[in-house]
Amino acid sequence: MSEAASAQVTRALIGASEFDRDTALTPRAPGVYDIDLSAGWTIINAVNGGYLLAVLGRALADALPHSDPFTISAHYLTASQPGPAVVRTETVRTGRTLSTGQASLFQRDEEGRETERIRVLASYGDLDSLPDDVRTTAEPPAIPPMERCLGPDDGPAPVDGSSAIADRLMLKLDPSTLGWALGQPSGKGEMRAWFGLADGRDPDPFALLLAVDALPPTAFELGLSGWVPTVELTAHIRSRPAPGPLRVAITTRNLAGGFLEEDAEVWDSRDRLVAQSRQLARVRLA
Amino acid sequence: MSEAASAQVTRALIGASEFDRDTALTPRAPGVYDIDLSAGWTIINAVNGGYLLAVLGRALADALPHSDPFTISAHYLTASQPGPAVVRTETVRTGRTLSTGQASLFQRDEEGRETERIRVLASYGDLDSLPDDVRTTAEPPAIPPMERCLGPDDGPAPVDGSSAIADRLMLKLDPSTLGWALGQPSGKGEMRAWFGLADGRDPDPFALLLAVDALPPTAFELGLSGWVPTVELTAHIRSRPAPGPLRVAITTRNLAGGFLEEDAEVWDSRDRLVAQSRQLARVRLA
Repeated sequence: MSEAASAQVTRALIGASEFDRDTALTPRAPGVYDIDLSAGWTIINAVNGGYLLAVLGRALADALPHSDPFTISAHYLTASQPGPAVVRTETVRTGRTLSTGQASLFQRDEEGRETERIRVLASYGDLDSLPDDVRTTAEPPAIPPMERCLGPDDGPAPVDGSSAIADRLMLKLDPSTLGWALGQPSGKGEMRAWFGLADGRDPDPFALLLAVDALPPTAFELGLSGWVPTVELTAHIRSRPAPGPLRVAITTRNLAGGFLEEDAEVWDSRDRLVAQSRQLARVRLA
Repeated sequence: MSEAASAQVTRALIGASEFDRDTALTPRAPGVYDIDLSAGWTIINAVNGGYLLAVLGRALADALPHSDPFTISAHYLTASQPGPAVVRTETVRTGRTLSTGQASLFQRDEEGRETERIRVLASYGDLDSLPDDVRTTAEPPAIPPMERCLGPDDGPAPVDGSSAIADRLMLKLDPSTLGWALGQPSGKGEMRAWFGLADGRDPDPFALLLAVDALPPTAFELGLSGWVPTVELTAHIRSRPAPGPLRVAITTRNLAGGFLEEDAEVWDSRDRLVAQSRQLARVRLA
């Protein structure tokens, strides 16, 4: 965690944080954007999928007449690298309450050929225009208070080759989903954490896109190690999050044939379910 | 249910059933297909979203080097009508084990303008190549034996304006999720049913795409009535289904701001979780 976050003396405002700076796009032409993918959001050497989703989410927010992602589906094609990238968007349909768009992120490979990294399809709306009505049977995750959860500062780095992204996040893991770090995975496909940005920036819909893919993979608690690449991830943003830390709970129920699903729920400080996501990921079976 | 299905004397084979005939595409050019959307799969006057997903799924199975949908995300743009349609596909990436493609379905509006109805992004593979390894904490849905569940033949049609699709499906609803039909919705966002094709055709991955969006909306059990249009639906096909009837369980946990999620699980006759899906849908609040 950065010093600013540890001290919580200054809190970065939305629009003026590391996350905003590193997801900012430069318009090149209508619907086309340049970005330098930051090395600050890598896990081992890979650029985090949630960070990339936030980048694409911001591109579509600019290109579409609506600015909030309601549902965004990403197919991860090839591994992104820190460095220059271009995002090309297409407006698929615009409506009064919802607009649909598509976006792709490209980078040049070693031979200079443009290679597509990720393609997303998304529908956007205006979260602030929705009625307050909520009927839910969902309950916030059972996670201990933040001071009883564990982050990178609380011990030797639990993840091999700990990664730049750890410095950008306030991530405090529920000890009961940390068995894998002590060589005793629980065998349950669960991972839970308190989540925030290290510089204290409050969450917004784009930070939710980051939050749904920022925890260690549930596969670790299933006793599997190694890389768990995302094939596809769909996130639903259900409400604008209130200021303050988020709680993220991830569940895997079914591992079969070398693939598993990860279902994420994100809860805000007002105990509202603000995002749901599901991804299909590949695992290397032991 | 059709007579053939009631009697269960003759069973249509995969490739030779109503479902195969009505999802068959005629190649027009590489990656471009014509189809006449059948009026046999309508609910009230709308073409069922699962039927449309199966049509797009078959187009991509033809266009891509892999033939089984592993994950398919559909954004529903405008309401499809029975009648002529064209499907245009694009191969996004081909790999050894997975290929990714995109497909859109278009129809002409009253002025003859081509209008996009649905766009999908999907990754395909070969289900038969996957290892048998399964680790799961998921359990088959608690649904009574089929003979204790209720279909359209078991009483007055429970859905107003009952629909052509009812003749194409073997759908037997769990009585405990049928309160809405008797004016006593349970208040729980649950819907469960036995599911098959009326002509006895066994399930395959494309029938799973139909199954995830074929039950009455969970909103009915939440006491809401009216149309619940799908904004986006993503389905994961996790295994090739065994012959015999499927069980489908749909759950809604969170209704907020006029939107809800519907999570579907599909189980085969060998008690395997063969498909998972989630959709974001709009509801009209009472």
